[in-house]
Amino acid sequence: MNKVLKSQLFQQGEAIPWEYASPGIQRQVYGHDDQVMLVKVKFEKGAVGAVHEHSHTQVSYVESGVFELTIGNERQLLKTGDGFFVPSNTLHGSVCLEAGVLIDVFSPHREDFL
Amino acid sequence: MNKVLKSQLFQQGEAIPWEYASPGIQRQVYGHDDQVMLVKVKFEKGAVGAVHEHSHTQVSYVESGVFELTIGNERQLLKTGDGFFVPSNTLHGSVCLEAGVLIDVFSPHREDFL
Repeated sequence: MNKVLKSQLFQQGEAIPWEYASPGIQRQVYGHDDQVMLVKVKFEKGAVGAVHEHSHTQVSYVESGVFELTIGNERQLLKTGDGFFVPSNTLHGSVCLEAGVLIDVFSPHREDFL
Repeated sequence: MNKVLKSQLFQQGEAIPWEYASPGIQRQVYGHDDQVMLVKVKFEKGAVGAVHEHSHTQVSYVESGVFELTIGNERQLLKTGDGFFVPSNTLHGSVCLEAGVLIDVFSPHREDFL
């Protein structure tokens, strides 16, 4: 595939469809090309982002809520305004302790989200 | 330089120093490696992100506020929950109409921010 998938230049949040990710977790795909992708992920209280890994580097920002994050062997509570970094091929998972939203960014893009 | 600069796995927002970017604009650098970097940018009302371009792809999320964004020849008002995508080497700029915060992500990282 030589085609580079790209988003529009502007995204209106209200116009982006919410997609089911897993129980209590939904996502919206924002700006992206083949190199980077921004995704908004909404968690209900108690929702679990199961431990997983991927080759993509991930950087995230906690827009709201409280999350227990595990990355590799480290675990930390994160709240509104905090962030985290997941190196390539590193196991990570989250438990949502208070309903909230993560801004997750992947590099390269998550082809599986398109 | 073969050294890959990487952030810590977890970032506590309150512990990240604010850096002066330009009049009315400050930033905090969150998670990053050489491939991707997440930056929180706080704008006072009326602050202007001067038109500029860079080789990095940029994806952004409007955490709060109202901004007039120009990307290439397109211009749009964006508010809380909206987003935008700046292709590599594309002129872009912003005017802050109501004080707020952008989450800007660059790929590769902004070496000039470290």
